[in-house]
Amino acid sequence: MEEIEAAIGLIRRGADELLIEAELVDKLGRGQPLRIKAGFDPTAPDLHLGHTVVLNKLRHFQELGHRVMFLIGDFTGMIGDPSGKNATRPPLTREQVLANAATYREQVFKILDPEKTEICFNSTWMSELDAAAMIRLAARQTVARMLERDDFARRHANRQPISIHEFLYPLCQGYDSVVMKADVELGGTDQRFNLLMGRELQKQHGMEPQCALMMPLLEGLDGVNKMSKSLGNYIGIAEPPKEIFGKTMSVSDTLMWRYFELLSLRSSDEIAALRAEVEGGRNPRDVKVMLAREFVARFHGERAAGEALADFEARFQKNAIPDDLPEVRVAVGEGMPVFKVIKEAGLTGTASEAARMIEQGAVKLDGGRIEDRNLLLVAGGKVVLQVGKRKFAAVVLA
Amino acid sequence: MEEIEAAIGLIRRGADELLIEAELVDKLGRGQPLRIKAGFDPTAPDLHLGHTVVLNKLRHFQELGHRVMFLIGDFTGMIGDPSGKNATRPPLTREQVLANAATYREQVFKILDPEKTEICFNSTWMSELDAAAMIRLAARQTVARMLERDDFARRHANRQPISIHEFLYPLCQGYDSVVMKADVELGGTDQRFNLLMGRELQKQHGMEPQCALMMPLLEGLDGVNKMSKSLGNYIGIAEPPKEIFGKTMSVSDTLMWRYFELLSLRSSDEIAALRAEVEGGRNPRDVKVMLAREFVARFHGERAAGEALADFEARFQKNAIPDDLPEVRVAVGEGMPVFKVIKEAGLTGTASEAARMIEQGAVKLDGGRIEDRNLLLVAGGKVVLQVGKRKFAAVVLA
Repeated sequence: MEEIEAAIGLIRRGADELLIEAELVDKLGRGQPLRIKAGFDPTAPDLHLGHTVVLNKLRHFQELGHRVMFLIGDFTGMIGDPSGKNATRPPLTREQVLANAATYREQVFKILDPEKTEICFNSTWMSELDAAAMIRLAARQTVARMLERDDFARRHANRQPISIHEFLYPLCQGYDSVVMKADVELGGTDQRFNLLMGRELQKQHGMEPQCALMMPLLEGLDGVNKMSKSLGNYIGIAEPPKEIFGKTMSVSDTLMWRYFELLSLRSSDEIAALRAEVEGGRNPRDVKVMLAREFVARFHGERAAGEALADFEARFQKNAIPDDLPEVRVAVGEGMPVFKVIKEAGLTGTASEAARMIEQGAVKLDGGRIEDRNLLLVAGGKVVLQVGKRKFAAVVLA
Repeated sequence: MEEIEAAIGLIRRGADELLIEAELVDKLGRGQPLRIKAGFDPTAPDLHLGHTVVLNKLRHFQELGHRVMFLIGDFTGMIGDPSGKNATRPPLTREQVLANAATYREQVFKILDPEKTEICFNSTWMSELDAAAMIRLAARQTVARMLERDDFARRHANRQPISIHEFLYPLCQGYDSVVMKADVELGGTDQRFNLLMGRELQKQHGMEPQCALMMPLLEGLDGVNKMSKSLGNYIGIAEPPKEIFGKTMSVSDTLMWRYFELLSLRSSDEIAALRAEVEGGRNPRDVKVMLAREFVARFHGERAAGEALADFEARFQKNAIPDDLPEVRVAVGEGMPVFKVIKEAGLTGTASEAARMIEQGAVKLDGGRIEDRNLLLVAGGKVVLQVGKRKFAAVVLA
């Protein structure tokens, strides 16, 4: 019983919602490996840390001895967007699906244990279904229930079109759970409705319903918005070691703990101990370095992690100026306020941004902090300007 | 051009709505036989005159040289009601479908010309469809559009459940029109939405859209409600000749003209001439006899029609009492008011109904009309009571 409590503790770590805990306790109590399902998009995967929140949780289940069913939803991917409205979603060929699966495999096995992972394709069973079976499946749910799903409800209220086939997709996803005999399904909080559909269809098929575990959407580097490629606030798992390391070091001390909770494979006890140390006075930067190192090690190996750390320490902790500093020539003429020079040197997008950085104390001239944005720089000689933690330029004043 | 105008005149006769006349004029103008589609339920057919309104219209198209595609919707019938809510609609087997089709054939060729009729089963193409094709089909229509259908709109507004598969059926029906390359589809006014779905899907498949011809729902014998088995106001085409004849004679003179328009195969000119005669003083009963005779002849042959007419004349026009009069014993004791005797003899359901019939002058005692409902009948002897035109009993007063 104590063991199950500990398991539930690990499973709940960072999770947004678990339905239904009592059922999961029952399942865990049987002492058999459970079948843990998570579905992934079959389009070309280029994962960032946001995607790994679910992978990490799957890893937790593996550590508890359970079996992960990594489902690639290629059936609908091979249909494409049949409404033709989304030209950027042409149907995938079988070859593309397999190629994407290979890329997935390469990326996810940096987190998952291949021995306890089964990669499945739902086309295996969905392409066996005929139209009549699809109609029978559709009979298992009502229009009203489907319109309860947040995004459908919103679109329907706003009179934005919903194609009927969009109602069939959650049913297909639920049917996957029936075929896969899933004990638990994981997904983001945006998958809540679809995960519950799996429960309902399993019940209708006389099966014990799966538990649904919803993981939060990960905040991006800004600590506010959801991590996404389009917002630029992401850490891609295929990015170079120095980028991963540097971006991790740039997050706030608060966000750092969130990343520990959701992304680190360290135990909760270890994390609690680190937190206590920081509260006791240890520099949070030391702890952040451990997180950055863990990320680089996971995606590029220990050696790369060591190098990235050494580089980072050389750059920032020792306040050294990088070797490969780019040299920029700025025509300052009779004299130019430093905030304008910063902009001219390309260290900020606008002069007002440069001024703001100075006000925030984030600009150094030859290693010393500047407080006056109107400090005049005159022609002749070369200075090193630093904006924020990671932007440098050697500026030739002409 | 004049020929096309005449054709449109015949097609429009009795029809509720034609979409779109200009398109139909175009199609007719090509001088080729058109493909006229009408779909029928695959459950055991036991047709009444209400069902023949569409068959008659199909016959008109055949008279104009066109080809009727008589579609038996067996695909969905073989699925049954997958929601399991309608236990009375279990899936039909292939054998049942074929048996029902044979019964249909027998019944409909009393109206349609077999040489110009093709009996189709939509399972032929629908069972070839896989789940992916069904999803693609579902992508061709929106939820909002589907909820515009009268019955869906009403149920949705009343929070009555609509299963998602119900949205797929109109799409299947529309897809039938694509496969069948229908030029025109016929249906009751309640089929308007589904007929338009055929137009839309044909357009989306790059085809010329079918025209949609909506026939009204036939009023039953009461002249008010739609003809239906459950209301008891119907004439079944498999009923005995005397029943068909007698029920036809029982309709009002107004309804008679409606039946001529929708059910008779007489030409519009002929009907107009009969109407003129009646307006000129001819007894409408003579004309009604022609209609009754036509119905019996169609469903039981000329000979049966002659016999039914002779029987009818013997019974009613000569005011004769039928030979096979049922004999009923009523214990009247010291004397019983006639309206109660009528009830006791089973000629009305209640005594008050009997009293009402007497007030309306619809009751005869031994051939003479009764006006006093309290007329006392005393024990001894036998009287013939007649209620309305067709209910008789020989009552032994005891």
